[in-house]
Amino acid sequence: MMDLGLLMLQDMEKERETLQVWKKRVEQELDRVIAFWMEHSHDQEHGGFFTCLGRDGKVYDHLKYVWLQGRQVWMYCRLYRSFERFRRVELLDAARAGGEFLLRYARVAPPGKKCAFVLTRDGRPVKVQRTIFSECFYTMAMNELWKVTGEMRYQSEAMEMMDQIIHWVREDPAGLGRPQLSGTLATEPMAVPMMLLSLVEQLGEEDEELTNKYAELGDWCVHRILQHVQRDGQVVLENVSEDGKELAGCLGRHQNPGHTLEAGWFLLQYALRKGDPKLRMHIIDKFLLLPFHSGWDPEHGGLFYFQDADGLCPTQLEWNMKLWWPHSEAMIAFLMGYSVSGDPALLHLFYQVAEYTFRQFRDPEHGEWFGYLNQEGKVALTIKGGPFKGCFHVPRCLAMCEQILGALLQRLGPAPLGSSPAVSTHEGSK
Amino acid sequence: MMDLGLLMLQDMEKERETLQVWKKRVEQELDRVIAFWMEHSHDQEHGGFFTCLGRDGKVYDHLKYVWLQGRQVWMYCRLYRSFERFRRVELLDAARAGGEFLLRYARVAPPGKKCAFVLTRDGRPVKVQRTIFSECFYTMAMNELWKVTGEMRYQSEAMEMMDQIIHWVREDPAGLGRPQLSGTLATEPMAVPMMLLSLVEQLGEEDEELTNKYAELGDWCVHRILQHVQRDGQVVLENVSEDGKELAGCLGRHQNPGHTLEAGWFLLQYALRKGDPKLRMHIIDKFLLLPFHSGWDPEHGGLFYFQDADGLCPTQLEWNMKLWWPHSEAMIAFLMGYSVSGDPALLHLFYQVAEYTFRQFRDPEHGEWFGYLNQEGKVALTIKGGPFKGCFHVPRCLAMCEQILGALLQRLGPAPLGSSPAVSTHEGSK
Repeated sequence: MMDLGLLMLQDMEKERETLQVWKKRVEQELDRVIAFWMEHSHDQEHGGFFTCLGRDGKVYDHLKYVWLQGRQVWMYCRLYRSFERFRRVELLDAARAGGEFLLRYARVAPPGKKCAFVLTRDGRPVKVQRTIFSECFYTMAMNELWKVTGEMRYQSEAMEMMDQIIHWVREDPAGLGRPQLSGTLATEPMAVPMMLLSLVEQLGEEDEELTNKYAELGDWCVHRILQHVQRDGQVVLENVSEDGKELAGCLGRHQNPGHTLEAGWFLLQYALRKGDPKLRMHIIDKFLLLPFHSGWDPEHGGLFYFQDADGLCPTQLEWNMKLWWPHSEAMIAFLMGYSVSGDPALLHLFYQVAEYTFRQFRDPEHGEWFGYLNQEGKVALTIKGGPFKGCFHVPRCLAMCEQILGALLQRLGPAPLGSSPAVSTHEGSK
Repeated sequence: MMDLGLLMLQDMEKERETLQVWKKRVEQELDRVIAFWMEHSHDQEHGGFFTCLGRDGKVYDHLKYVWLQGRQVWMYCRLYRSFERFRRVELLDAARAGGEFLLRYARVAPPGKKCAFVLTRDGRPVKVQRTIFSECFYTMAMNELWKVTGEMRYQSEAMEMMDQIIHWVREDPAGLGRPQLSGTLATEPMAVPMMLLSLVEQLGEEDEELTNKYAELGDWCVHRILQHVQRDGQVVLENVSEDGKELAGCLGRHQNPGHTLEAGWFLLQYALRKGDPKLRMHIIDKFLLLPFHSGWDPEHGGLFYFQDADGLCPTQLEWNMKLWWPHSEAMIAFLMGYSVSGDPALLHLFYQVAEYTFRQFRDPEHGEWFGYLNQEGKVALTIKGGPFKGCFHVPRCLAMCEQILGALLQRLGPAPLGSSPAVSTHEGSK
């Protein structure tokens, strides 16, 4: 019989090797992905970013989607300040140019705060959504720009916009322009408290004053997100009434497993900050394991885009497609879940999702990821960017996974002398 | 060598037999389809129709979509007055109850004319679209109700709503509530003049006074639809500028083959009424053959939902799906095209589309048709009705094909004595 200590040591070595392989893999993939956006998406003439990019990066439409402008500014700044190798002047310059484009053009009728959803290449508004999301990504962009440059005007913009968003959500949505109709219930899409919670984390990061300022808001967001757990904890529903009741019909039964997983890691960050292990277990159970077990396609692999809580057929044509972002969010959620709980089942789910994701979505030929596969995993849309896919979910996932994997490896301590992780052999096999 | 006259006679016999088979097939299918809606969709309590019906007809959502309410009223009345076997009191009663439901609840803020897009089961507005389509289907319903019942209040409603629609389209769209934005071009979706042209045909049917009243409007619609033929006649584009120029980007390159085919038969009816053979040939060329040749999937059969005029990847997730309605519209278009031109190539296209359609969309088990297949022809959504699929495209197609096939057979004259068309053997094989 082998020595138990030796066995454990061997297991640890095996785990270290696999983590090492994945760390290297996401690191290199992040470099490739950022290279793709730097090469193809910068509008040198007007500032801001092209996001409608074909398989090879060619621009197929010059429209500028405000969500994606804000997200790319945020992503560039975040990489610039978190990774030594991305502290590059081209990244910062492009982020600044994107920020200036937003400052100049995003708002439809300044000094009003309402932002457009999409702008022409030179910044004229084309469409306005009656939601808060353009404004949220605007706020994220401005706050990161401030964090990187130290320029107060960016932070003032972020704070003013944040006040406006909170007013719309918690006091009076009239400014969003949605008509009040007698048949419309006060519905809460989970996206709203999720988005606000991520802003609370964003603005409060390493800032005690703002952490305190938004503490009550953060608690409120978490309370509202948790209300989406319904039917005695058996399902997470995308839409509930404002007082946390299930709604009638398709709207009420609508499920979005990727969104639930994304909410999962937003909530985990919050629970971690609060030091609340009971909440942490609840989140892992309801926002990580539940959507995975209901949402993973047993036949072809991958997460369904939409589901119906009663198992009926959803009415959205794309319900059975496999989209890139639920998979990036699942990678973050399971790796973070493992990191905070140490439960090896979560690490294995990370591997399962990551293997599928790297195999099906990555484009080894032209870089970046495909966004839209059919149920069987075949590429349905060859575009690399579009109205809803920009430089955001993929690099955010890769960057966060690189960081978490790095921290996990550090926790394991240095590799014993003489051991050589199988990185170089596994690598590039995908 | 055989006698040429005999050969022609044999060909004619063969054609008669095939037409006969298809006439019987669409006739029986129409009966089954109407039976499905009569059994499952009538709301006995509030009037109007449930259209969110699962594969077996079970109601999965009680919402009432105004387009589909108007369309089902129209369809029931049209069948009632055009087919002896549908002159049934249950159909008329349900149509009346649907009409009363619309009269009472469709308008969001009476006496304003703007109609809701969707209502609760008991008629409270849930959503309003900033387009003219709810109002157009409302008008179609009211006009047919008048034609069937002779009650003037229905016709007054139709005429008043028609005035309002014309005002929105040709004078001032402000009442639709669309914001004026500096980046938005004055875009014309082909749906608008198409819809208006179909109303002109509807209201003017067997009514000389209204035919004259709307003659100029009909000409205007046709002029506007023809402006969507672009690039020297090589493509039909779904959106062009109001003065008939191609628009930039995805919006400008967007193609919808099924919609073009539907426009095709609307235009053919107009050309027939006008007795304009040159226009007829142009329509067959550009609105029937062009979308079929670009839109038919050479690999799996069926018409793509959306395409990009430059052959780029569309950004709509459902672009490569096969939907029921483009196929029903194609059946009408090719059969009507054959009927007006006598070109056997068009008859063969009808057969090709009809074979695919009956094979892939029909549900022999529970009745009605599936609406949404993936590219390979597999059922992607099992619903029989939903927010956009009601009692309309399928029965309209079947009823019109039955009528056209009947007329074609009559033109061929009576079958020679002793010949027995192979109807009974071919039948039911699908």
